[in-house]
Amino acid sequence: MARLSEHGIRLSSMSPSFLNSNSTSHTGPFSAVAELIDNASDPGVSAKQIWIDVTDEAGHPCLTFTDNGSGMTPNKLHKMLSFGFTEKGSARASQQAIGVYGNGFKSGSMRLGRDALIFTKNGGCQTVGMLSQTYLENIKAQAVIVPIVPFSQQTKSLVVTEDSEASLAAILQHSIISTREQIHAHFDSIPSKKGTKILIWNIRRAKDAKTEIDFETDVSDFRLPKIQIEELKKGLRSGGSARAEQSIPDLHYSLRAYLSILYMKPRTQIILRGTKVLAKLVSRRLSHTEHDVYKPHFSKEKVKVTFGLNPNKDHYGIMMYHKNRLIKAYEKVGCQLKTSGQRAGVGVVGIIECNFLKPAHNKQDFEYTKEYRLTLGALGLKLNDYWKEVTEKMARERELQSLDRLKNADESPMWVQCEECLKWRSVPAHHYSAVPESWSCSQNPNPRYRSCSSPEEEEESEEQLAPSYQKNHRKQEHPRNRKREAALETCESLESSGHQTLSRSWSEPGRLALRPTRSPDHSAAGDEGRAGGGGA
Amino acid sequence: MARLSEHGIRLSSMSPSFLNSNSTSHTGPFSAVAELIDNASDPGVSAKQIWIDVTDEAGHPCLTFTDNGSGMTPNKLHKMLSFGFTEKGSARASQQAIGVYGNGFKSGSMRLGRDALIFTKNGGCQTVGMLSQTYLENIKAQAVIVPIVPFSQQTKSLVVTEDSEASLAAILQHSIISTREQIHAHFDSIPSKKGTKILIWNIRRAKDAKTEIDFETDVSDFRLPKIQIEELKKGLRSGGSARAEQSIPDLHYSLRAYLSILYMKPRTQIILRGTKVLAKLVSRRLSHTEHDVYKPHFSKEKVKVTFGLNPNKDHYGIMMYHKNRLIKAYEKVGCQLKTSGQRAGVGVVGIIECNFLKPAHNKQDFEYTKEYRLTLGALGLKLNDYWKEVTEKMARERELQSLDRLKNADESPMWVQCEECLKWRSVPAHHYSAVPESWSCSQNPNPRYRSCSSPEEEEESEEQLAPSYQKNHRKQEHPRNRKREAALETCESLESSGHQTLSRSWSEPGRLALRPTRSPDHSAAGDEGRAGGGGA
Repeated sequence: MARLSEHGIRLSSMSPSFLNSNSTSHTGPFSAVAELIDNASDPGVSAKQIWIDVTDEAGHPCLTFTDNGSGMTPNKLHKMLSFGFTEKGSARASQQAIGVYGNGFKSGSMRLGRDALIFTKNGGCQTVGMLSQTYLENIKAQAVIVPIVPFSQQTKSLVVTEDSEASLAAILQHSIISTREQIHAHFDSIPSKKGTKILIWNIRRAKDAKTEIDFETDVSDFRLPKIQIEELKKGLRSGGSARAEQSIPDLHYSLRAYLSILYMKPRTQIILRGTKVLAKLVSRRLSHTEHDVYKPHFSKEKVKVTFGLNPNKDHYGIMMYHKNRLIKAYEKVGCQLKTSGQRAGVGVVGIIECNFLKPAHNKQDFEYTKEYRLTLGALGLKLNDYWKEVTEKMARERELQSLDRLKNADESPMWVQCEECLKWRSVPAHHYSAVPESWSCSQNPNPRYRSCSSPEEEEESEEQLAPSYQKNHRKQEHPRNRKREAALETCESLESSGHQTLSRSWSEPGRLALRPTRSPDHSAAGDEGRAGGGGA
Repeated sequence: MARLSEHGIRLSSMSPSFLNSNSTSHTGPFSAVAELIDNASDPGVSAKQIWIDVTDEAGHPCLTFTDNGSGMTPNKLHKMLSFGFTEKGSARASQQAIGVYGNGFKSGSMRLGRDALIFTKNGGCQTVGMLSQTYLENIKAQAVIVPIVPFSQQTKSLVVTEDSEASLAAILQHSIISTREQIHAHFDSIPSKKGTKILIWNIRRAKDAKTEIDFETDVSDFRLPKIQIEELKKGLRSGGSARAEQSIPDLHYSLRAYLSILYMKPRTQIILRGTKVLAKLVSRRLSHTEHDVYKPHFSKEKVKVTFGLNPNKDHYGIMMYHKNRLIKAYEKVGCQLKTSGQRAGVGVVGIIECNFLKPAHNKQDFEYTKEYRLTLGALGLKLNDYWKEVTEKMARERELQSLDRLKNADESPMWVQCEECLKWRSVPAHHYSAVPESWSCSQNPNPRYRSCSSPEEEEESEEQLAPSYQKNHRKQEHPRNRKREAALETCESLESSGHQTLSRSWSEPGRLALRPTRSPDHSAAGDEGRAGGGGA
């Protein structure tokens, strides 16, 4: 087992079973899918589109992920099939890159199925590689080996390397495809000259032998199957309830819903089963949106935090993004954590991009560092502020019923993405009744931005960033009357006690309280580096 | 970069940076510590004791984990320093083994610090190995290499292998120790003839340069540091609140608290900074404990579910164990998930050992499979039952105030563990005022179990397993009067509507409602295989 390195010391080895171990950080399939999309979006690939589908290959359902990004050389493909190799962590790339760990393809693909083929074209070379647990098991491999076969893209002939012929034989014998023609058919199915197609088979099944993803209920979506009454009944040996699952946010059971908010500002269009995923800006579904600013003392960044009321009050908390990518959804903070007494903060959604934190292995959580805890603490206080402000405001205006209505939403601009240049443009709210599925700069009602060559509209710069509302309740009140610790307690009883005190000074002079925000809610400090960089 | 395997096909490679990537599945340090304890407890090692400490080595704080288990051969140590090699998944071992992924040491140690040395003695051989990010960075390694140096345990002389001398040189040059004498001093500090000591240095620090673990506040504990008012204030540029963190369960910030409930029935005694961690049975802190039975239709197992009321009502939900090891704490189910209306299920804690589910990468979650969702659904219904029963019972007895008092607790036996044989024995509740810190079978008031040679007391077998209470509210009611979906709604308004309906038949004839449970609350179906197996 012991292989020596050039240093004369043995290498750490990797058992084929580690492929499964490594994939178990994805508790569900959607975060695994997200890894593959991240890879297509990230710098170095920068696909304009990615197509996600379920297809039939030799009678087996397969998942396919096809993008028109820049493709890979055989060497780069080997890195993708290895562990921890990423160039994303350094240089300019890091400004945009979501990937940091060099593990997304392995953990993601092996979570979705036992076996994967990767077809990639980079203009000159087209290469197929295989990461397959079934293959490694069949040949009783002691370590993870990865067949890689390059072909000339022009002549389609095999490029002979030290292991290309053995690799080709392995793929034809042990994968779901058995002829060279099939390999080339997959290359040809990538719609552009460059790009990558991932084919995953032996997709994961539940103990009842059904695929873990439900492809039938909605033929334009990947869904988690509903839990059936009958199954629960068996577990209970008597009558059960069909309502085993509460009213949970749709992003937990619909891939389309999850992908629609996966990126604050998507740079790659996702086409799921033939239908484009429409990017939904979370903040656009909220009423009474306001923004606040968070400046962590351990970071140079100033970050915008958007708050609003969700029409569906059951789903509330902070949507935490990292480098444009959703990490945590509906994270409860501040008064939302209170388990006793009157419910406070229910229905409030916050949105923030936390580039100053580190995501965990599966990008579904942050590392639980002191910085993370400080951030949650600060977000809690800000959410309390917002809750106090918005409920007082609504009480004053005797508009409590408006909690259940969308308000203001129509006053903010609608954001659409150009299909050609992938820039985001704002159009007046009433210009379209719904976000158009297909749109390009040439349709822009605003002539200034009616061309793909116009730069993206500037978002609020870091210097301008300031809260959108005055926090009147803080100004009206007597400073330092009460202990600061009151903050969390008081937000429970907003109407009953009008004179809680928190001293706080704002750098910006009074702006109208609770006016609609001026800029798109997804803008945030640190976004400037991204503007205009799409598709590069 | 490409190394060929014996199959003539290139190996997947592992970058040194993957050591960090792989560790990021542990969002915090406590779950990383737990991995190292799991390893010491698991079959093949079966340590009776593990000592966890923070020490000073050459001026640097180091974490040490020392056990008196069976130690390792150089070959086994190499597997431990490799990825995915575990023998725990198969044969008889799997009945008891917590480890399944062959990744615990790597993910755990590299989460706690950048570098680790492992000293291990197996009776004949004593071996030191190194897994060090600093070393790999220093020598600009392209792959993870792991110096391993075996010595004769008798003569203390180096065993010459193909890489032992180069490995020794690497350790003395690049680790925190620089002489062979220091190596042998570490071997000697392992208190028995066999055993393993892990030394971790360059332990993780926050951005403020303080160690992520607070060693000062409590010198007998590892704690997560408190968030200071000042830090939050800076983040908010004005007055903040010290109450940034809510009343969270102590297991989230005190390692001692976490370790006290990490195992349902600990087989290895943990000594943290010189003081033994007293195993707390979660159920013993509850009042009104009852048990129910869950039989998943996808599994052969019948599993006991214990419910009770937590004196601290803020902490509630299901404690989910897997093979004796805590995976999820305070997971909300059933009516506890309701976000609107009257609070139901608050204060109810449930305890279950879910060996039929699969833990995720970091053992802090389960894979989100259909089986998992079915289990949560069924637990929700059972918790609703319990809540209805207990609140009705308390209403009848006009004892609502007893929600805040411990009740029944003294009637169930106290469980103590013998220091010699590690068997668990029950003693009458009033025999000791508190769990004795040091206890052996010879002190047992019950002569039948006054010797280490007596087998462990039998727990309820699977066949006997039945709910401990009658679920009166189900019997009194008219079957099929209402839709089954009512289950979750009705638990909100228990007092107001006395006649909800759920049909359900129980195999066991009437037992007294809400009597104290007969058996220890941590017993569960599937536990039999473990009885008597400790320390083997």
